[in-house]
Amino acid sequence: MKPEEITRDPRDAVIALDSGAAVRASIYGRRAATLARLAALGLPVPEGAALSFESVDEIAAGGALPPLPLGGGPGTLFALRSSPEERAWGGPPAVLNLGAGAESHAPLAAAVGEAAALRFRVRAVASLGQLVHGIDPEEFEALARRHLAGASDPQTEALGPLLAECLALYEAEAGAPWPETAEAQVALAARAMARAWNAASARILRRAKGAPEEAGLGLVVQRMALALGDGAHGSGQVQLVDSRTGAPACVGAWRTQTQGAGTLGARTACPLAAADGAGSLEARAPVAFAAARAAAAVATAGLGDACALDFVVEDGRLVVVDAVAVRRSARAAVRIAVDLAEAGAITREEALLRVDPTSLIEHLHPQIDPTAPRDVFTTGLAASPGAARGRIVFTAEAAQAAAAQDEAAILVRLETSPEDIRGMHAARGVLTVRGGMTSHAAVIARGLGLPCVVGAGDLRLDPGARTLTSRDGRIFHEGALITVDGTSGQVSVGAPATIPPEIGGAFSTLLDWADAVRDLGVRANADTPAEARMAREFRVDGVGLCRTEHMFFEAERIMVMREMILADTDAERQAALDRLLPMQRADFIEIFEIMRGLPVTIRLLDPPLHEFLPKEEGDIAALAEAMGVPAAAVTARARELAEVNPMLGMRGVRLGVVMPAIYEMQARAIFEAAIAVNRDARAPVVPEVMIPLVSANREVELIKARIDAIAAAVEAEQGVAFTFKLGVMVETPRAALRAEELAASAEFLSFGTNDLTQMTYGLSRDDAGRFMRAYVNAGVFPEDPFHSLDLEGVGELLLIAAKRGRSRNPGLVLGLCGEHGGDPSSVRFCKLAGFDYVSCSPYRVPIARLAAAQATLLARDGGDWGGGGPA
Amino acid sequence: MKPEEITRDPRDAVIALDSGAAVRASIYGRRAATLARLAALGLPVPEGAALSFESVDEIAAGGALPPLPLGGGPGTLFALRSSPEERAWGGPPAVLNLGAGAESHAPLAAAVGEAAALRFRVRAVASLGQLVHGIDPEEFEALARRHLAGASDPQTEALGPLLAECLALYEAEAGAPWPETAEAQVALAARAMARAWNAASARILRRAKGAPEEAGLGLVVQRMALALGDGAHGSGQVQLVDSRTGAPACVGAWRTQTQGAGTLGARTACPLAAADGAGSLEARAPVAFAAARAAAAVATAGLGDACALDFVVEDGRLVVVDAVAVRRSARAAVRIAVDLAEAGAITREEALLRVDPTSLIEHLHPQIDPTAPRDVFTTGLAASPGAARGRIVFTAEAAQAAAAQDEAAILVRLETSPEDIRGMHAARGVLTVRGGMTSHAAVIARGLGLPCVVGAGDLRLDPGARTLTSRDGRIFHEGALITVDGTSGQVSVGAPATIPPEIGGAFSTLLDWADAVRDLGVRANADTPAEARMAREFRVDGVGLCRTEHMFFEAERIMVMREMILADTDAERQAALDRLLPMQRADFIEIFEIMRGLPVTIRLLDPPLHEFLPKEEGDIAALAEAMGVPAAAVTARARELAEVNPMLGMRGVRLGVVMPAIYEMQARAIFEAAIAVNRDARAPVVPEVMIPLVSANREVELIKARIDAIAAAVEAEQGVAFTFKLGVMVETPRAALRAEELAASAEFLSFGTNDLTQMTYGLSRDDAGRFMRAYVNAGVFPEDPFHSLDLEGVGELLLIAAKRGRSRNPGLVLGLCGEHGGDPSSVRFCKLAGFDYVSCSPYRVPIARLAAAQATLLARDGGDWGGGGPA
Repeated sequence: MKPEEITRDPRDAVIALDSGAAVRASIYGRRAATLARLAALGLPVPEGAALSFESVDEIAAGGALPPLPLGGGPGTLFALRSSPEERAWGGPPAVLNLGAGAESHAPLAAAVGEAAALRFRVRAVASLGQLVHGIDPEEFEALARRHLAGASDPQTEALGPLLAECLALYEAEAGAPWPETAEAQVALAARAMARAWNAASARILRRAKGAPEEAGLGLVVQRMALALGDGAHGSGQVQLVDSRTGAPACVGAWRTQTQGAGTLGARTACPLAAADGAGSLEARAPVAFAAARAAAAVATAGLGDACALDFVVEDGRLVVVDAVAVRRSARAAVRIAVDLAEAGAITREEALLRVDPTSLIEHLHPQIDPTAPRDVFTTGLAASPGAARGRIVFTAEAAQAAAAQDEAAILVRLETSPEDIRGMHAARGVLTVRGGMTSHAAVIARGLGLPCVVGAGDLRLDPGARTLTSRDGRIFHEGALITVDGTSGQVSVGAPATIPPEIGGAFSTLLDWADAVRDLGVRANADTPAEARMAREFRVDGVGLCRTEHMFFEAERIMVMREMILADTDAERQAALDRLLPMQRADFIEIFEIMRGLPVTIRLLDPPLHEFLPKEEGDIAALAEAMGVPAAAVTARARELAEVNPMLGMRGVRLGVVMPAIYEMQARAIFEAAIAVNRDARAPVVPEVMIPLVSANREVELIKARIDAIAAAVEAEQGVAFTFKLGVMVETPRAALRAEELAASAEFLSFGTNDLTQMTYGLSRDDAGRFMRAYVNAGVFPEDPFHSLDLEGVGELLLIAAKRGRSRNPGLVLGLCGEHGGDPSSVRFCKLAGFDYVSCSPYRVPIARLAAAQATLLARDGGDWGGGGPA
Repeated sequence: MKPEEITRDPRDAVIALDSGAAVRASIYGRRAATLARLAALGLPVPEGAALSFESVDEIAAGGALPPLPLGGGPGTLFALRSSPEERAWGGPPAVLNLGAGAESHAPLAAAVGEAAALRFRVRAVASLGQLVHGIDPEEFEALARRHLAGASDPQTEALGPLLAECLALYEAEAGAPWPETAEAQVALAARAMARAWNAASARILRRAKGAPEEAGLGLVVQRMALALGDGAHGSGQVQLVDSRTGAPACVGAWRTQTQGAGTLGARTACPLAAADGAGSLEARAPVAFAAARAAAAVATAGLGDACALDFVVEDGRLVVVDAVAVRRSARAAVRIAVDLAEAGAITREEALLRVDPTSLIEHLHPQIDPTAPRDVFTTGLAASPGAARGRIVFTAEAAQAAAAQDEAAILVRLETSPEDIRGMHAARGVLTVRGGMTSHAAVIARGLGLPCVVGAGDLRLDPGARTLTSRDGRIFHEGALITVDGTSGQVSVGAPATIPPEIGGAFSTLLDWADAVRDLGVRANADTPAEARMAREFRVDGVGLCRTEHMFFEAERIMVMREMILADTDAERQAALDRLLPMQRADFIEIFEIMRGLPVTIRLLDPPLHEFLPKEEGDIAALAEAMGVPAAAVTARARELAEVNPMLGMRGVRLGVVMPAIYEMQARAIFEAAIAVNRDARAPVVPEVMIPLVSANREVELIKARIDAIAAAVEAEQGVAFTFKLGVMVETPRAALRAEELAASAEFLSFGTNDLTQMTYGLSRDDAGRFMRAYVNAGVFPEDPFHSLDLEGVGELLLIAAKRGRSRNPGLVLGLCGEHGGDPSSVRFCKLAGFDYVSCSPYRVPIARLAAAQATLLARDGGDWGGGGPA
């Protein structure tokens, strides 16, 4: 024996379908494997055999067909069907009725009647003629039209001449007589199918569907169940769940006297159950109907997934032709997986792996009914999912006015700024002309669970005229009714029908199972009590990012904040901070109460101060009056603070270093709030103070010293000890590279992957929207790196930082709190990188919980994340 | 023998000064080592001995003074002087006249007279009283004033009673009688000096000067040359070079009857040479004068550096007391080093290492005379060196108008933008209120060699009123005369005196030697023919960065550029590009002609397009008219193109990917220019095309394919083959991390460390000026990372990229073309990282050439760069 023969997998060129588990999809294709499994389950699968990929390859190359066990005696017909490894990869269509010819005619006519026997022969000639010799099917159809004149049950007198003409056509075009034997017909069909699989166009098509270059084709040859003829004959499909909801239901249809939908002379579909209408299977073949339902249940349990069965009724008896996974909506997928697990057909772990985490978002928001017509006038980036309908408003004030009258409004802006947040709270949906997936509008909307489309760059917004003009010239005025679909990015005129959200039942059960499995924490990004409550409802493990800046935009605070920013002296600044302190403390008390027993990570003030300054003339005048200075002074100061690149400017820890009083006020508010909430003996909250935008360790040391001093002062004043953690938000490449140093001062590192992505790519999330779609479409970036973590660049920095940080401080807690925290592949990366938790918008928490469970399960199996690891 | 005794360096507690090389500065201090060397050179150094750091430590701790060879016979006095390892670290002042007392009186009186003998004793009592017992020197001085009544040559009758009262004061305060023996006095002085060295305040002072915590003090005890008494006595200093220029000159002074400047009763300084005035040394002691000049020459040759000698004239004979390196200006340092090498006192390599590369800048620009008074009204960042005086103008137009009338103008702006470039060309200097070391103004000014101060944040500029107000309220109107000192960052009222530039002679010789030594290329960043010519004058190895955007700001081009940007259709855009092509080609032809025989790296268009659009109403109207559209349309389009963070926006290769026609035009202009210039057989230029702001390899592949196609088309059209290189500008952290991939397509990687620093830190160079000084002062950043390469963060990315790039492509050329190319420590880093070249502003080329030579020399010695290496 030669060495390669020892190690080679023994794979027969041909294997019988009743060979059970030996019929492997990786050798004979998915259909062959499924049929073998169905046969093993005792279902009535016609006898037959499968040809391996290898043997089909050889046939395509001109090799002989291996000997097939084409038994069954005279009058037996055969079907030849494709069996690639994945159904999605396609394959040439089935060829039926092989074996029909002069020899088999008499026994067939005896079994199902003369007319049916003739029809089998006509069909065999037409399909083999087309497949093998490329005869235009229209020529056969023209003959059929002439002879049958549209009769649905043509009789012998018409079919005989039709057959004769078809045979003549075949012989003329093929240059050879009709091959009468089943063996000859199958051989011709098999070679033609093998070659069709290797055609260039077929290769391109299946590669587009993800098939590898070398994907092979298997073939299945089976005795045909005769679906035509005298008696109860036909074919159909049955499944036991509703594809839209996943709820139990007997769904399907059948066609009498039909060999399959789309075959020559197919009949109208009729219901399965007698209750559902006339011509039902139950009425025409009650035994077959009962058998079909039972078979679908057996297949579902046996294959471990809800199946749609293809069946044939042959003289009143059920024959199973195929079983495929039921097509299902995102919501149905959850229900099906949970029901299968509860029925014991699969394990809970398998159920968890069956559902695409991203699809859970569809449970949380209303969705536009996929069947409803819609008039789309622009498509932008799908920034925050769900559908919202409302009347256009162009300002935050108008949105608030609409909300006050309980009118649904869609806030339409060029882009949003922190001043629009109140308006966003009041609106039902948001549409912006500019911005990318992590623009201000997108981030805030996801946090609020507000449907949002951003970067609809083909719209022209005229704020003066208060009009919005679409590319095709349609003009929308304030008050026009539109619907924003944040799931698809489409914005439609009017109000297409929607379907409501649904988060109970199977959804909730699946997430319970996910929590039992996962060993990666899931926290929420929550800036407000409302978001914290939402997070708690979604059962998070804590708050991973509480941004403090939004708290300052509330009406009574923004003025004090502005006075603080514009203060000329330290004393004036401190006076303003002293007024902000009780407000911040009250914010934290409320959030801590909600999050009792869990950690809450609070990020110290991050944005550049000019973001808080007024831009509208009226606001400037109001501020100037409150401060007793001329409006020009306010304008001048605002201009002084303006920055060329605010993302890279005087923000984050730089504020803390240069104006320490702000962080000191915030630390005091956090500590006093924690003491107030933890005063009773109930589950205490553990505040985690996070320093943003660090690029040098000395920044952390300086801030840590000040915060420790505030903690000591508060402890002394209140006579109460308390615990808190201090950590660093890693958002600059330099912080990632210097993680070893940082880990000496920090108890946790939380990766702000939004900003880290911006800096690693040198790419502003606010400006990227302009070309990101073009970039992704052209394959320059495989995906929007703000949407799915860039493993090769940003991911390597995360791995470097994790390794260096833990080398100094093995107990270092590692988290991710960018938008990527709600992206399944990023979650999986975090699990494999040894992170402790991810944190994401409350509305993405279910996604993260399921993704974390999947990552845990896959890591157990020693999974790899597929992307480039560190060099 | 115990193990530690085997390995310990044998170091005697006391060593004689005539022990030659055994008197090491690291054991006995710099003064001791120098004196031993002078003695070995045959110079008249008084006999004496040195105490090691260790033995002085023991004395400070209470140990006994080791036995000293205090010979010399009766009437010998001793001096005890500090000898730390570095002179700059200070040390307690010398104690003279030790041994003066009743016993030594008679022999001394016999030698130099009764009066001098008494004066030695008075001085010994006063200085030991102060040093050892802390007696207020004012008390001794009060006694002296009373007894001597200001007489410059007091006689015995006054000195006798003074001595008696001094001894009484000493005894009263010390609680012990005056120690009469030299041994006792030396022991007391040595212990007091040892303790003074260890005082907390002394430690802090010397640590501030860079001394290590454990720095030790050595002591030197020597027979005193008697500088007082009957005969030609005195002390002085001599050096043989001019400290300001480094030119040969006998410079110095002496004081008759004085033991050293600052000692009790010091006399007026007199010249050395008779020609220089009355009371000269030459006239009073011609032998000592000749000996002093000769000794200075011997010391200079022997110590290998220009020395200032401290000497004493003892009865007409020269005694050498000390030799220190001559203080020197930056310009003098070059002259001295070159002269020493040419005289054979040091090698050329040593000469190269003697000069601080940064100081070369002072040769290139006028400098404010350090001795001139100045009225500084603000201090900003010293962005581009040199002094410039002129009248304030607030607009580029005013600067051009002033230049037209040949009036010197200083352009004062809040910050500059590309539209100001013509005004900068016309101005003599630039002052901006905002911006950091790599802001637009700073970068352009350095390129132009234009003195520039940026980030003078305490100024208030009112562009409407055309006034500039200083922090102290002074108001400057247009036309006010000011002087910008870009070397110090100071801006002064009026016109302080300046000294002119000087780049011939020693400067040029030193750089020739540097070129002979260095194995790191030095190229220039040159955008214009003028800069290229400047670079060629400074003898560069090529152009490492030719930015193409500035070419589009010239008057006749900017309009076409704007039409290109605002084009509505591809055809309109192409039409504008077709008009730009011959202009670009002409630019390149001119630069290539200048750089014949050398490589020229051309960066494809980099800035965001909105930077080219007009901002002033007049310009907008002109553009609108030229394009035949309403002004509002131009404004609207400009607003659409505006970006939140332009640094991270639609620029660099992103333009190339989204609007390929621009890069295609540029590539064609480069290739056609190269063919035109290389048509004759003279030294051909090799164009290197560089793609900016790459973050993904696919960007490079796309652009490379297009550029290769243009190259093939141009070759076919012109029937001429030509060579060019294609490379990547590494400016994003991601490009550095993915260098292995990039190296597959690129022939060179050039690190744009300005942008790479911005992105690694998340820090905009335009906005950092606001807090950079505070950050550096507080030690948050050890240095401005835009000024000196951040080795720990950015440097690590460079090392990662170099390693990964070369692993794929061992022949990969590596260069650095940020501002850091002109920073010596960054140049050294590049050498050690295996780079092929650095590229910097033309005016920094001399610095880079010298720094590269030093780096080469230090690398030969296996030097390390001191910063953190890669983890």
